[in-house]
Amino acid sequence: MTEASLFAPAWAGTDVAETTSETQLIQALLDVEAAWGHVLAEHRLASQASAEALAGIARSPEQVSSLNPQRLAAAAAGGGNPVIPLVAALRTELASRGADDSALHQGATSQDIMDTAMMLMVRRSAERALPDLDQAASALAETADAHRSTLCTAHSLAQHALPTVFGMKAAVWLDGITSASSSLRAAQAGLSLQWGGAVGTQAALTEIAGAGRAAQMTLRLGETLGLAVPALPWQVQRQSVLEIGSALAGVAAALGKAAGDVLTLQRPEVGELREPAAPGKGGSSAMPQKQNPSLSVLIRSAALSAPGHLSTLYQAAAAANDERPDGAWHAEWPAVRELLRLAGGAAARAAALFQGLEADAGRMTANLTAAGASLLSERLMLSLARQLPGGREQMQNLLRASLSEGVDLRAALLEELQESPSADADVQQLVESVDLALDPSGYLGRADDFIDAALAAHSRGGGDPA
Amino acid sequence: MTEASLFAPAWAGTDVAETTSETQLIQALLDVEAAWGHVLAEHRLASQASAEALAGIARSPEQVSSLNPQRLAAAAAGGGNPVIPLVAALRTELASRGADDSALHQGATSQDIMDTAMMLMVRRSAERALPDLDQAASALAETADAHRSTLCTAHSLAQHALPTVFGMKAAVWLDGITSASSSLRAAQAGLSLQWGGAVGTQAALTEIAGAGRAAQMTLRLGETLGLAVPALPWQVQRQSVLEIGSALAGVAAALGKAAGDVLTLQRPEVGELREPAAPGKGGSSAMPQKQNPSLSVLIRSAALSAPGHLSTLYQAAAAANDERPDGAWHAEWPAVRELLRLAGGAAARAAALFQGLEADAGRMTANLTAAGASLLSERLMLSLARQLPGGREQMQNLLRASLSEGVDLRAALLEELQESPSADADVQQLVESVDLALDPSGYLGRADDFIDAALAAHSRGGGDPA
Amino acid sequence: MTEASLFAPAWAGTDVAETTSETQLIQALLDVEAAWGHVLAEHRLASQASAEALAGIARSPEQVSSLNPQRLAAAAAGGGNPVIPLVAALRTELASRGADDSALHQGATSQDIMDTAMMLMVRRSAERALPDLDQAASALAETADAHRSTLCTAHSLAQHALPTVFGMKAAVWLDGITSASSSLRAAQAGLSLQWGGAVGTQAALTEIAGAGRAAQMTLRLGETLGLAVPALPWQVQRQSVLEIGSALAGVAAALGKAAGDVLTLQRPEVGELREPAAPGKGGSSAMPQKQNPSLSVLIRSAALSAPGHLSTLYQAAAAANDERPDGAWHAEWPAVRELLRLAGGAAARAAALFQGLEADAGRMTANLTAAGASLLSERLMLSLARQLPGGREQMQNLLRASLSEGVDLRAALLEELQESPSADADVQQLVESVDLALDPSGYLGRADDFIDAALAAHSRGGGDPA
Amino acid sequence: MTEASLFAPAWAGTDVAETTSETQLIQALLDVEAAWGHVLAEHRLASQASAEALAGIARSPEQVSSLNPQRLAAAAAGGGNPVIPLVAALRTELASRGADDSALHQGATSQDIMDTAMMLMVRRSAERALPDLDQAASALAETADAHRSTLCTAHSLAQHALPTVFGMKAAVWLDGITSASSSLRAAQAGLSLQWGGAVGTQAALTEIAGAGRAAQMTLRLGETLGLAVPALPWQVQRQSVLEIGSALAGVAAALGKAAGDVLTLQRPEVGELREPAAPGKGGSSAMPQKQNPSLSVLIRSAALSAPGHLSTLYQAAAAANDERPDGAWHAEWPAVRELLRLAGGAAARAAALFQGLEADAGRMTANLTAAGASLLSERLMLSLARQLPGGREQMQNLLRASLSEGVDLRAALLEELQESPSADADVQQLVESVDLALDPSGYLGRADDFIDAALAAHSRGGGDPA
Repeated sequence: MTEASLFAPAWAGTDVAETTSETQLIQALLDVEAAWGHVLAEHRLASQASAEALAGIARSPEQVSSLNPQRLAAAAAGGGNPVIPLVAALRTELASRGADDSALHQGATSQDIMDTAMMLMVRRSAERALPDLDQAASALAETADAHRSTLCTAHSLAQHALPTVFGMKAAVWLDGITSASSSLRAAQAGLSLQWGGAVGTQAALTEIAGAGRAAQMTLRLGETLGLAVPALPWQVQRQSVLEIGSALAGVAAALGKAAGDVLTLQRPEVGELREPAAPGKGGSSAMPQKQNPSLSVLIRSAALSAPGHLSTLYQAAAAANDERPDGAWHAEWPAVRELLRLAGGAAARAAALFQGLEADAGRMTANLTAAGASLLSERLMLSLARQLPGGREQMQNLLRASLSEGVDLRAALLEELQESPSADADVQQLVESVDLALDPSGYLGRADDFIDAALAAHSRGGGDPA
Repeated sequence: MTEASLFAPAWAGTDVAETTSETQLIQALLDVEAAWGHVLAEHRLASQASAEALAGIARSPEQVSSLNPQRLAAAAAGGGNPVIPLVAALRTELASRGADDSALHQGATSQDIMDTAMMLMVRRSAERALPDLDQAASALAETADAHRSTLCTAHSLAQHALPTVFGMKAAVWLDGITSASSSLRAAQAGLSLQWGGAVGTQAALTEIAGAGRAAQMTLRLGETLGLAVPALPWQVQRQSVLEIGSALAGVAAALGKAAGDVLTLQRPEVGELREPAAPGKGGSSAMPQKQNPSLSVLIRSAALSAPGHLSTLYQAAAAANDERPDGAWHAEWPAVRELLRLAGGAAARAAALFQGLEADAGRMTANLTAAGASLLSERLMLSLARQLPGGREQMQNLLRASLSEGVDLRAALLEELQESPSADADVQQLVESVDLALDPSGYLGRADDFIDAALAAHSRGGGDPA
Repeated sequence: MTEASLFAPAWAGTDVAETTSETQLIQALLDVEAAWGHVLAEHRLASQASAEALAGIARSPEQVSSLNPQRLAAAAAGGGNPVIPLVAALRTELASRGADDSALHQGATSQDIMDTAMMLMVRRSAERALPDLDQAASALAETADAHRSTLCTAHSLAQHALPTVFGMKAAVWLDGITSASSSLRAAQAGLSLQWGGAVGTQAALTEIAGAGRAAQMTLRLGETLGLAVPALPWQVQRQSVLEIGSALAGVAAALGKAAGDVLTLQRPEVGELREPAAPGKGGSSAMPQKQNPSLSVLIRSAALSAPGHLSTLYQAAAAANDERPDGAWHAEWPAVRELLRLAGGAAARAAALFQGLEADAGRMTANLTAAGASLLSERLMLSLARQLPGGREQMQNLLRASLSEGVDLRAALLEELQESPSADADVQQLVESVDLALDPSGYLGRADDFIDAALAAHSRGGGDPA
Repeated sequence: MTEASLFAPAWAGTDVAETTSETQLIQALLDVEAAWGHVLAEHRLASQASAEALAGIARSPEQVSSLNPQRLAAAAAGGGNPVIPLVAALRTELASRGADDSALHQGATSQDIMDTAMMLMVRRSAERALPDLDQAASALAETADAHRSTLCTAHSLAQHALPTVFGMKAAVWLDGITSASSSLRAAQAGLSLQWGGAVGTQAALTEIAGAGRAAQMTLRLGETLGLAVPALPWQVQRQSVLEIGSALAGVAAALGKAAGDVLTLQRPEVGELREPAAPGKGGSSAMPQKQNPSLSVLIRSAALSAPGHLSTLYQAAAAANDERPDGAWHAEWPAVRELLRLAGGAAARAAALFQGLEADAGRMTANLTAAGASLLSERLMLSLARQLPGGREQMQNLLRASLSEGVDLRAALLEELQESPSADADVQQLVESVDLALDPSGYLGRADDFIDAALAAHSRGGGDPA
């Protein structure tokens, strides 16, 4: 059962809503117990029958009424974690199936199961979020390439700055996603089980199996679950959780930056972009013509929510005291879950957003034209100012006059330049140099190089490393 | 249906888990729509039949399958908020009941309904949390009173400082809860509806009803729902949400401080406190003798989680742009909900904790005795140092020798004081003054006054204002 | 010496940069010590000469080289707080002035001095910030009043929604500031000393003076410093620090919301507002014509920074363990200081911003006109839709055609309405009703009422309570 | 001039206080300008004389009065960043030295200089912090190795759990530092300049030098400054700032966890550890015998402060709009600076702490002994329970009786086991098996392996890669 999540449209209905559900936590807990049961049986520390019965439960937990989330959650509050009632329920169920419980939880502790299950949940959620990120990135790569020459205005401190191309904007968004995806992939690749027993020494397991076999069994468990095996248990050393959390929050930040720009560029007064329309999306019953940029809005809400959760993880890591924390551990679970949802939900929204984003090149040109010479003042200061009799100061005055009094800058420049003592150039040449300086398409710097660089980084890092 | 919340044992199974459920959000949304329907009908802007049909739905929403959280949530992602599909579902349901839809949502906008419903949810949740806080406070008041004379050690920077009484510790915890409850009650008393229409001008409502009636109808809605009516709509001015959030986070902080102290004082090496034992609580299957301080652990986890959510609310308030925010509003909902749950859950745990907390006065005495003269060094410096021939410096040396070399401080003091040139006092008097200085029960300052003050503040502020 | 603060232009050079400097912390610490010295002397527990010498130092600390911030800070790290080396320096200085040290620090502890000094710093900083907030509010009140009829566009989710007036926007900003100022004033009014001795029992003071006099002396200290005297010491119960922090962060949020809107409305594509120009402000050497909205930018940066500091205060409050915290107390100081600076700096910038803000009514009209019927669709759905033969659905189609295909809505509406079976009205009446529906100035709802309400709240709460 | 930092003893007086001072920011800004001046001169775009004059200023900025932090900061508020007045001051200074300004800032923008200078500051600060971390780690490695066999108690949820060795505790702390150092080193290695011109296209530079040379010059600048050259400018794509911030906050978290444990273990009731004593450190004038754990306290305060700053960076990254952010950029500077200070300060404190930490093995043994059988219950359940007639249930009862009623567990076990039907073993063997089960040194699991693993990871990653 997926949580309904009326409170969180940022991720409601996306894949991660499912992968992070209560049901899926139970599934992950069962997967860890079942995998461990097999390892125990392989080492003759449990009966094959017990391991198989346990695996059977893990395959179809919906058939076991005591594994219902509501019942487990009610029982979990007493001991502070859900593994205690889960193991009790499994013991009963194994008995009812005529199996012994030798494969159940032997040599493990609640935190081993919970931490390792959380890592499975992280992996399963990231496996859903990464393809969405890749789709968003690929769509942006196409956009960046397609709009290499689409002139538009760049802003600094919310004011006109210089001309740029829309492809450059898309390339910067892409670059953020490429970088964030890469961090998430690195965190994903490093996901490791946590298997330390009651206090991180594997004392019970060693008692049962001996130190050598304990090590082998831990490796085998990692192999079975597809998780790395860390040098030592991390029950109170949570740097890996911080790495995961930072990567997820980084995804939300990268997407949030892009969504924020889309919201601005879709403002009707700007009108350069338009979110994809979709049935049932973005409508308003009272204002039928309205096409709300709902995807961007939801991504932005995710980006606003993620940093608070991340700060909780860092506080919890510092408060992970003794050999099992007295509260900091419990504070991690909802924070990790919500970061998975926010990053994954934002990734799904971003894939939809960028795959269908409509750019209005005409409007971009119109805005650029309306901006006028203000976008080229830097260039004029660099190129023509020294040819004016009054130098930089005169150019500044001309620019101000052009903007505030509507003076025709081209005409004024030509007139002043002809009066320059050094103006032995012929008039035709002067006209050409002024027109050149006033042509925005000639003041794009290395935008093309940078678009190439963003596309190249995307190609290298975006897909699965084959 | 209550969310299962395996991820959050801090509040799982408490009253606020229910009051903040998806189902209860739908209920609150329906309550607002139904109340508004009645106001419309009162002013002849809707048919009585429509208003009654709507009220009927709000009374038994479980009978309307389209009001299922899952279905609404799935539909809500498109438009970014749950009110849009809710109104659509209600329109269909009214039709199926043969009622017209004149009482439905006329003159209102999604944000009006959602904001106002959230305030109902806050009120309903706080109504559950406040009695728990009161119970926790009352239990602490009894404890503070009962342990006015129970000597124990006070710590500064985690080291021994001075003697105190356990009642003083309880009084400080109580004082925090009294203060936090008072802030929450103030926020509760100020809860106001938000009713501004699409852009905060009540344009649609004014169109329908005229400005004068719009004002009257808004007042009437507030009356019906038991919410204050603000001077102007607050759809993008979220100071009241900040006040609520701060109050809730303040509750978590106050309880977290107390729980942290309990965890320290219950450490076996200290052993001065013991959480109440309860069936199914705090046990460990592998370590049967273990009685975990689960309540304190869960409270502490809540205190670690709350500040991140609060920071989200402040970021969202600053990002509440235009006349309806493009993401900041959506980021508020889960943060407010989680703060309600954390504060309410922690309050429920605190009530159980403080009602059953066992203080071990014997252990307190033993620890005090073991601390020895280190707890009275300040007093010795203040009282007897000047009578020593070597003054403060000699006293410091004596104290260090007593602690590091095990020198008998009382004997050493008597010997040195007798050698003092000013020691014309008789020996008996000297013995008395040394014994007096070394008696911890005489160095409690105004602990008794302060306990009285905490009890008085609790009496004034803790209960319902009758 | 004021810290240079190249890193924080949000508050650099404002009054709070000075009130929160290292030098001013030393001043506040000295003020507390000196005030306490007088109280001791009044009660004959110190010599008058000592108290006067101490007061002399506090009046001219710049003459005492050992009170240099650098030297004190270097010495403070050892003990973890600046009071320890300060008291040592004062003892030496008193001796060098031939005064005894009886008035110095007797019966007090480091935390008493530091906490109380911080409250003085809060008060002194808020005393500078509140007038700035009042100036910003008064300027907005004038703006709101002056622009009651200045039509402009309101946005929802960054899209066109309805017409509004610029005065309403200003009223909403004003309302936020009024509310935040009021919270800050309440916090300011409640500022209380913290005077508990080593563990919150006033043990040393009671030893010296007796319990009754200890109480009187504490009251007298509050009177002298202009601070309230709390029911009990709050050295590990930090709810009042949370109240201060929340109020300061609330100021940053209220101003941040307004600044964010200004930044949007000043975008050249919108062009409805313009920050005041000032010498040396907002210029760009490379782009001379550029007038950057620097004040809004700095306010926004303050609003982004404040919530993190606030979350630190809530974490610290929960971690305020034992009778003096082992780290949480130290984490508070920089957070409180930075919140004072951010709120005070933003207030100073806001006063400058709103006193000089230029509104371009012509551009507002132009944008409104360009938005066209999209701003009135809600009204058309409410008023004329039912008169169309195809009802709401037909109106929706007309609106969409008007926006996407450029169909002349007025003409189309007239044509369709005339075809309506119920259209027995004469044509002139139809034209009037269509023109009425399409007139934005008639769809402002209760904007005027709400502006009045914001002005009234400002008048009540804005100025000093006379 | 180093800021005094009375407010922040966590880093006051440490190396990072200097590397992050206002003066050092100016130095870093000058270093970037000077390095760029040389690159310009190399490419004949500036005179050698100008470049050399600029380099001369950068070498001795203290000789240029206009480069005073106070003056620059006052001037910086107007334009919102310190580079604008810095460049103006440099232009004047160059003129006064008779040099032309061709090497000054040509083709660069304020953000290029500021971002790149911040990266220099990060590098210089991390260069100071990493050796401190290495020292802390090396000290812990020695401690872990030396205390492989020092038995002590492990805690779970603040209660007794199992026996462990103190070396294992040190190994876990070490592991956290190794991991955090490794992340910081990775961030350090990736530090890259930011060189995009006004809007990230290098338009001005390309205008001056052509696209090909612009690329070469950027590479050359990176080479000169020792910074990587990114694929594209990151002025509004701040993932690298997030990486730095996360690494620094991770350092604070790793050290905070260790310091928190030290604070607990140094509590007088536990008494297993003791911070190094040092002249002027940790003393209390009123309580002379007190040796405060100041280093741990300061580290803990740093760990409480860091997460709030980190959350600001993530908010700012998402709010980095357009081609230069309108506030988010400015919010980064103090957050990055403070994270450098907190991580660096905590590292310096940790080096001092762990190099001098005293472990009291006798007290560890005493605490272990006092804990009694409670630490071995897991083992007894695993090993001997099945040999009891009543199995696990009987063992649980015995354990409870031992703890609550003081029953002698060894005697009781021997008695019960002899009554077991399966007890055909001889008594001597029984005694041996009971004594074995009750020996804590036999229940340490793989502690030794894990200590080895932590030492090995430290050896690989801890020192400089030679």
